[in-house]
Amino acid sequence: MGSLMIYMPIAMAALGLIYMLIKKSWVMKQDAGDGKMKEISDHIYEGALAFLNAEYRLLAIFVVVVSVLLAIVSLVVPTTHWLIVIAFVFGAVFSAFAGNIGMKIATKTNVRTTQAARTSLPNALKISFGGGTVMGLGVAGLAVLGLTAFFIFFFWFFMGGAWTNTMDMTIVLETLAGFSLGAESIALFARVGGGIYTKAADVGADLVGKVEAGIPEDDPRNPATIADNVGDNVGDVAGMGADLFGSYVATVLAAMVLGNYVIKDMGGAISDAFGGIGPILLPMAIAGAGIIISVIGTMLVKIKSNDAKEAKVMGALNLGNWVSIALVAVSCFALVKWMLPETMQMNFFGEGLQDISSMRVFYATLVGLVVGAVISSVTEYYTGLGKKPILKIVQQSSTGAGTNIIAGLATGMISTFPSVLLFAGAIWASYAFAGFYGVALAASAMMATTAMQLAIDAFGPISDNAGGIAEMSEQDPIVRERTDILDSVGNTTAATGKGFAIASAALTSLALFAAYVTFTGIDGINIFKAPVLAMLFVGGMVPVVFSALAMNAVGKAAMQMVEEVRRQFREIPGIMEGTGKPQYDKCVAISTEASLREMILPGLLTIGFPLVIAFVPMIFGMNNLAIAEMLGGYMAGVTVSGVLWAIFQNNAGGAWDNAKKSFEAGVLINGEMTYKGSDAHKAAVTGDTVGDPFKDTSGPSMNILIKLTCLIGLVIAPILGGHAIESAVVKTEFVEVTNGITDAFDVEIVTVDSDNAKAVVTKTFTENGKIMKEERVFEGTLEEVKAAIEKMKTKK
Amino acid sequence: MGSLMIYMPIAMAALGLIYMLIKKSWVMKQDAGDGKMKEISDHIYEGALAFLNAEYRLLAIFVVVVSVLLAIVSLVVPTTHWLIVIAFVFGAVFSAFAGNIGMKIATKTNVRTTQAARTSLPNALKISFGGGTVMGLGVAGLAVLGLTAFFIFFFWFFMGGAWTNTMDMTIVLETLAGFSLGAESIALFARVGGGIYTKAADVGADLVGKVEAGIPEDDPRNPATIADNVGDNVGDVAGMGADLFGSYVATVLAAMVLGNYVIKDMGGAISDAFGGIGPILLPMAIAGAGIIISVIGTMLVKIKSNDAKEAKVMGALNLGNWVSIALVAVSCFALVKWMLPETMQMNFFGEGLQDISSMRVFYATLVGLVVGAVISSVTEYYTGLGKKPILKIVQQSSTGAGTNIIAGLATGMISTFPSVLLFAGAIWASYAFAGFYGVALAASAMMATTAMQLAIDAFGPISDNAGGIAEMSEQDPIVRERTDILDSVGNTTAATGKGFAIASAALTSLALFAAYVTFTGIDGINIFKAPVLAMLFVGGMVPVVFSALAMNAVGKAAMQMVEEVRRQFREIPGIMEGTGKPQYDKCVAISTEASLREMILPGLLTIGFPLVIAFVPMIFGMNNLAIAEMLGGYMAGVTVSGVLWAIFQNNAGGAWDNAKKSFEAGVLINGEMTYKGSDAHKAAVTGDTVGDPFKDTSGPSMNILIKLTCLIGLVIAPILGGHAIESAVVKTEFVEVTNGITDAFDVEIVTVDSDNAKAVVTKTFTENGKIMKEERVFEGTLEEVKAAIEKMKTKK
Repeated sequence: MGSLMIYMPIAMAALGLIYMLIKKSWVMKQDAGDGKMKEISDHIYEGALAFLNAEYRLLAIFVVVVSVLLAIVSLVVPTTHWLIVIAFVFGAVFSAFAGNIGMKIATKTNVRTTQAARTSLPNALKISFGGGTVMGLGVAGLAVLGLTAFFIFFFWFFMGGAWTNTMDMTIVLETLAGFSLGAESIALFARVGGGIYTKAADVGADLVGKVEAGIPEDDPRNPATIADNVGDNVGDVAGMGADLFGSYVATVLAAMVLGNYVIKDMGGAISDAFGGIGPILLPMAIAGAGIIISVIGTMLVKIKSNDAKEAKVMGALNLGNWVSIALVAVSCFALVKWMLPETMQMNFFGEGLQDISSMRVFYATLVGLVVGAVISSVTEYYTGLGKKPILKIVQQSSTGAGTNIIAGLATGMISTFPSVLLFAGAIWASYAFAGFYGVALAASAMMATTAMQLAIDAFGPISDNAGGIAEMSEQDPIVRERTDILDSVGNTTAATGKGFAIASAALTSLALFAAYVTFTGIDGINIFKAPVLAMLFVGGMVPVVFSALAMNAVGKAAMQMVEEVRRQFREIPGIMEGTGKPQYDKCVAISTEASLREMILPGLLTIGFPLVIAFVPMIFGMNNLAIAEMLGGYMAGVTVSGVLWAIFQNNAGGAWDNAKKSFEAGVLINGEMTYKGSDAHKAAVTGDTVGDPFKDTSGPSMNILIKLTCLIGLVIAPILGGHAIESAVVKTEFVEVTNGITDAFDVEIVTVDSDNAKAVVTKTFTENGKIMKEERVFEGTLEEVKAAIEKMKTKK
Repeated sequence: MGSLMIYMPIAMAALGLIYMLIKKSWVMKQDAGDGKMKEISDHIYEGALAFLNAEYRLLAIFVVVVSVLLAIVSLVVPTTHWLIVIAFVFGAVFSAFAGNIGMKIATKTNVRTTQAARTSLPNALKISFGGGTVMGLGVAGLAVLGLTAFFIFFFWFFMGGAWTNTMDMTIVLETLAGFSLGAESIALFARVGGGIYTKAADVGADLVGKVEAGIPEDDPRNPATIADNVGDNVGDVAGMGADLFGSYVATVLAAMVLGNYVIKDMGGAISDAFGGIGPILLPMAIAGAGIIISVIGTMLVKIKSNDAKEAKVMGALNLGNWVSIALVAVSCFALVKWMLPETMQMNFFGEGLQDISSMRVFYATLVGLVVGAVISSVTEYYTGLGKKPILKIVQQSSTGAGTNIIAGLATGMISTFPSVLLFAGAIWASYAFAGFYGVALAASAMMATTAMQLAIDAFGPISDNAGGIAEMSEQDPIVRERTDILDSVGNTTAATGKGFAIASAALTSLALFAAYVTFTGIDGINIFKAPVLAMLFVGGMVPVVFSALAMNAVGKAAMQMVEEVRRQFREIPGIMEGTGKPQYDKCVAISTEASLREMILPGLLTIGFPLVIAFVPMIFGMNNLAIAEMLGGYMAGVTVSGVLWAIFQNNAGGAWDNAKKSFEAGVLINGEMTYKGSDAHKAAVTGDTVGDPFKDTSGPSMNILIKLTCLIGLVIAPILGGHAIESAVVKTEFVEVTNGITDAFDVEIVTVDSDNAKAVVTKTFTENGKIMKEERVFEGTLEEVKAAIEKMKTKK
């Protein structure tokens, strides 16, 4: 059975996708309501499609350009195979397709939720969460299906479907990295572009509609209202989906790379029931199991009473979530015990080879599950209604917008304290348990419930939309009340979901970072080298500038929207009386175009910096390994700073939002109940204006920035490392000698069998008038060592 | 003459201090004006003294506690000498004394400037800048005097006044680090405490005075107005002075440490005209020359016309500044050529020994001077009146406080782009020229004009105070107009001065970081080890949390001030009519106590984290070198993140401030001239409220945080490194062997003479049931190698 394990994740993914199709057809069969509801829902659906189509056009150009670049690279660099281009294109297409499924189902589910809410809250939850489930399983199923299928394909293509050596497996995994890069590129468009879209539409609709024209939110007379509702789907459904799709794939990939390294540390081959690739298969198996577990988890989410309040709904979601996490823990235990050798050897930098039992790997996966759970609580504490930080911001609103904003900023900043200590502790602990393989598996375990997390996340914007449709189609207030219960729970899950997304991005980036180091064959990244330290600084700066660009982009796009809405109010007769029909599509088009245009600059920043760092010094003849170390410093800088800015911006934004919302039910300030419309509330609204791009645009974009940066590094790695050759070098020493015959070349073979060769090579040459001796020790397969000696001969 | 060079910096410092005394007595001789002016000035003077006294009390406790800790450490750790305690105390006392001189002269000069402004603008500038000069020379003179005197003392005490070996010199410099630690501790109190003080008083005075009571700024009826004026001195004079005092000392110290390493790389001894310590003396000599150059520079700052405008005053300051920088360049060239060997050998990590000519060291100093100049222009661009970023914020104010704040945040964030690229380029270039010695000398050259920079900085708050006194004593409007010209120039120099302070803190920290690595004897800081990476994360988080704590501290202290002012308005009869006398001293006391109380938590965070990272793992038996590497990762995290947050907060704050000020002369928004009192102006005022703690409290505090963190690391370094023993280890390898005699110990001496020994030591032992072989290569003096072998014998 073990040898069939390689197909297990595909089977699980297929099962998940089948369940998704069943669920989808069930949702589609639900009553989609009457004329007006349907009309509005169709507008949202069409708006969403318009965005998708525009995005796909831009994407197609992007994919073609990157494919050509990758193709050139694969032709020039012997260690990169052209199949990486195919993997890249498929990664992009799969992620885009998953986003498409998610957007379509979300925009079909919203109206059905409204319709169900007319009679039953439990049904409304069932439908909206059903839509979320379709979205979640679509993303997770396609991610696992694509990654696994390509792995099997490359495994056969490069290795004939059986273990040869770690070097060949490295080529398999390097090529597979193309799939991950493709997926993350889509995430850039969906998350950053989507983030700009949603806020431009939101701010534009509010500024003219609510403030200037004095009409309520979601009023159908507002030309931007459809764009606003489309935005919820674009940002929170497609954006979040693409983000987690990218994390999921990258995490599993990084764990596989590090699994291959475990095999290398164990002598280059192991014998197990899985064709000797147990440690590489394990992360895929966990992902596969996670899909089935998520299906079980989603089945548990239901309520019975039509009078249920937020707590009940939240309880139902929590039950599903906790059961999923517990089941993942159980399956991790079983899989780890079954698939890994009882004891492994892993190389710890500076500490040498250590014996690691499979139980320790299991402990590492537990660390990941704990992080996923705790980060949600931390996020909930700093951004949750009624919690201390929010109450403090509310109090500070009484002395004006200035103090409200200082309080919000401070809350976001302080929230980095527990979050970073948690991440740092997780890195430390999972590494202590099982090295970087442990770190990557911690991330994999956390990500195993991705489908469940996405279902919980996506149900929020669906309910939000359902409420909008109820409002626009002038339903009975009870309908809006019911959707508001779902929406309110959705707001909480949106905040905790952002925490999960950051945690996943952080752990994914670390795993990718570790994979990068192993790919390049450098001994580590020493920040005591000034160029590396300089790049650490530059990397630290990029998330800050990226965030500013994203915020400015929202401002620009929103201004365009404002002008358009003003124009329509001015030029369309009878629009305010409800007799003239607003041109919703114009607003949708503006949001779409502006968001895609404005994401180009931050996108170029993300992609351009690593390329410049890698290739400009190369042109100037800098040593490749030195460049690899610099690029590693850059990646670390982006990751550390990006995680900080993600937490800061998301939590500050979430806190301002809920501080503002607190006024809806009334808050006690200096002994007086204060409500909407008070000066304090106005101050809180100002805070929320600042927080909007923080939490919905620049904050979540950080996830993509850090992952994409590390992935680009990983794809560049073989170019820099030439690992197939350099990895054989164990030690290099240069010494000046007083006399010696220059251009002498001496090879001393220490040990040889074809899998395990060691050679000491000495070369004497002159440099700057001095006689230098270079001594290198090579270790590896005989082939590797021979290649390395050849290379050393030809190089100065 | 060369052998007397060691006394040259003392002589220069003494000359600078004598000139300071002359200048001081000249300032004091100026007319201090009539009754009312004098009365107000006396209030400010007394308020400043009250703060200083309260600060000294807290300081005294702090110094005693730290001294005891240091004493214990020096008793337990053989490589730390108890004299470090004395150096620490003197460092604290000297810095405090310099701050005292500065505060006193500033609070005496303000009223004299007002008096001079009644008749002559050139005289007013002469006096206010004269006060600044006293301040600047006091700081620089005492810094160089103290550091140099202690160096000579320790050089005699530990080495008998003549070169022995780099090890002994390391002990000299480690002990000298106590002086730097003492100075930087004062900076913590002065900068952070001062920053909280100034903003608490400012916000408190404005909230009740301007907003609630409707009386103008600097109105003598406002009980907090004296505290507000004291605050300008506490924050901008004493705080900035202590900050640069600390940077100055730390930079020179770090350059000396790295100079010692150059000697080590050159074989452990050089022969030159300076007793073999030319590379160590050089940074002190540059500092000494800088004092005399600053004196010359200050003499050039004068204007002739009584009708001069801002541009003329700015021009005069620029002339003095640029001439100083040019003279430093010239003197660096002369000193480098004279004091350094024609060619040096320096060890570059991963690249081995390289020949470095003294000209390359000179180029490194030029890099420092360029950075100092360019960073000021960058800061000026992002925060200057009439510049594009400010105009953009002004435009965004028309759509409310929310968009104003987003624009300000984005401006601060984007300003990190050129600043960080500049720093990264400077690190890279100065390292490429002359290794970390080059980086430290770049910082030293930049800091050489500290006295001049401080004179320019301190003249701003003096003029600000002079304007306040003119207002409060109801002078002719022309007096205020004249002081306003000086004040306005002072605002610009304050912004650029902050840029200089950040640049100095950044380069100082890097130099300290490099010195730290050499002190601990680790090979570098490899962030591919997970614990090191975890600490990089934690380090990155600390500046963010520190900033939040500082901002919250301002909020809390300001609230207390508000209550007190309200109480006085309520309880003191006739206060609003000007017949009742406000209790200024109560407000001063509140600001003083609150600021010192509120700085305890951020202070503990700063000091506590490195101690916890160093000592907690030690208790758990972690390897010292592994801890040293972790602490290094933490230091790098704090530095990278701290520099980013310093730039972000300072520039955002400066930009908001000037966006608000733009409305005073009127701004064109959407084709309409808009002035003070408009809605857009109100939005800009809100932005400024947020910016106030950014630019005056949390932003500048970052400088102290990063320097103090690196200094604490440097002081802990010998405890971790035990460099005297471990530095001899060149290579350690552990291998498992299949058979061998355990507890075997074999020493093979490779080369020996007393200064240059090499030994290979092999030890076989069992661990976890396996037979392990440990092979170490030692290199160093015979004594070091022997000590290391002894240590290896006794350790497992």
